[in-house]
Amino acid sequence: MTYCLAVKVNRGLVFASDSRTNAGVDYVATYSKMRRYCWPGERVCVLLTSGSLATSQAVMNAINRDLQDPDATFNLRSGKQLYEVAQYIGKLSQEEQQRHAKAMEKSGSSAESNFIFGGQIAGQPPEIFHVYPQGNFISASDDTPYLQIGENKYGKPILDRIIAKTTSLEDAARCAMVSLDSTIRSNISVGPPVELAMLQTDNIDEPFHSTYTLNSPMYKSMQKQWTQGLKRAFNRLPRFDWEKPER
Amino acid sequence: MTYCLAVKVNRGLVFASDSRTNAGVDYVATYSKMRRYCWPGERVCVLLTSGSLATSQAVMNAINRDLQDPDATFNLRSGKQLYEVAQYIGKLSQEEQQRHAKAMEKSGSSAESNFIFGGQIAGQPPEIFHVYPQGNFISASDDTPYLQIGENKYGKPILDRIIAKTTSLEDAARCAMVSLDSTIRSNISVGPPVELAMLQTDNIDEPFHSTYTLNSPMYKSMQKQWTQGLKRAFNRLPRFDWEKPER
Repeated sequence: MTYCLAVKVNRGLVFASDSRTNAGVDYVATYSKMRRYCWPGERVCVLLTSGSLATSQAVMNAINRDLQDPDATFNLRSGKQLYEVAQYIGKLSQEEQQRHAKAMEKSGSSAESNFIFGGQIAGQPPEIFHVYPQGNFISASDDTPYLQIGENKYGKPILDRIIAKTTSLEDAARCAMVSLDSTIRSNISVGPPVELAMLQTDNIDEPFHSTYTLNSPMYKSMQKQWTQGLKRAFNRLPRFDWEKPER
Repeated sequence: MTYCLAVKVNRGLVFASDSRTNAGVDYVATYSKMRRYCWPGERVCVLLTSGSLATSQAVMNAINRDLQDPDATFNLRSGKQLYEVAQYIGKLSQEEQQRHAKAMEKSGSSAESNFIFGGQIAGQPPEIFHVYPQGNFISASDDTPYLQIGENKYGKPILDRIIAKTTSLEDAARCAMVSLDSTIRSNISVGPPVELAMLQTDNIDEPFHSTYTLNSPMYKSMQKQWTQGLKRAFNRLPRFDWEKPER
């Protein structure tokens, strides 16, 4: 499984992903699920993937092929609007799935992949999209300014409590890290390292990017302080009538 | 959907359940999913259900039928060990499902139910079981002293962080309430009122039982303090290198 998410706040975009892939429980591997594309001053995009690793890799290869092909009718850099690029990613994903549809059906397995795609084109607002395996897609809303793919449930409550469009970019990034950490603790199919990318609105440049292992000082300190803070919050919860007053 | 859980700590057992049932999004209703059975000094049991409401109700009716039938070969009160009673509940569930199997298959819907069953027989240790739709079951372990049925993922991270077998009964109950509240916030198919039952180890008597609506003072205060505590914990998380020091 996988857990990836993107958050869109007024100040910019945050992308976060885990790095565990598995085909059954006895074939577990580590793969980055984040790709960054940047033409400074022109456009910056981030792509996150979950689902079939074969489909995900094929889509990323096709994106690179089209970027390098001067005769390509469309590519990641030529799309005039971000939603056109989301459409293109959906089309690449569908093409790849169709190519293996018969064989996949025979084997009873799935070649479906989900993608989160987002970024900013100079002069246009930043956007994030969830591209479904069927090739269609949605964008985040002001009321629910985040998108998740993969194992999304464990990490959703903290997003619902913290994230609003007015949240700072750094707080959104911290919240994404907590959301990922909660998922990693509760589900063995989601695992480190955690990748984080941040794009500041209207700063069309290489995104801030960092990879955190369980031993990275920032990740360790975040984990420790969150656990302590949760315990403190828990210990302050109201007592039942018959209990002694708060500790 | 539904979310029910049971926690087994040294000091006793906690059971908690939501009350929302739905058949599609346009038929939503409120039903208690908790049944308590008590013969003071002899045995006390609690049953939680999720899945097909028809199967759940049929099983509860069959339990009552057997309790009232002096010729019944087995009932909730006669089982010598709790695992035998768990087995009996699995058998009742399977019988009910088989009865409608053909019709259910035709309609493409499912009559499956999951049950959490637990309690204590005088002189024996308290126990909790998850009875699967197939009729087999598992009990909680010392390392993972809780069981969940229904929409279990949203509320799992807080259990994983707080619950250990040494947790007090009241803390286990508070944690169950937070786990339910997180699920209610993130998933529309799980809803109030929240029911809570607590059994103290070796106190074979009517369990403490309470029903909390969103307006119950204890629930409101718990919700408010948890939200505040989480925000406080969140605001104390470590800053990125380039940020100003902690607020």
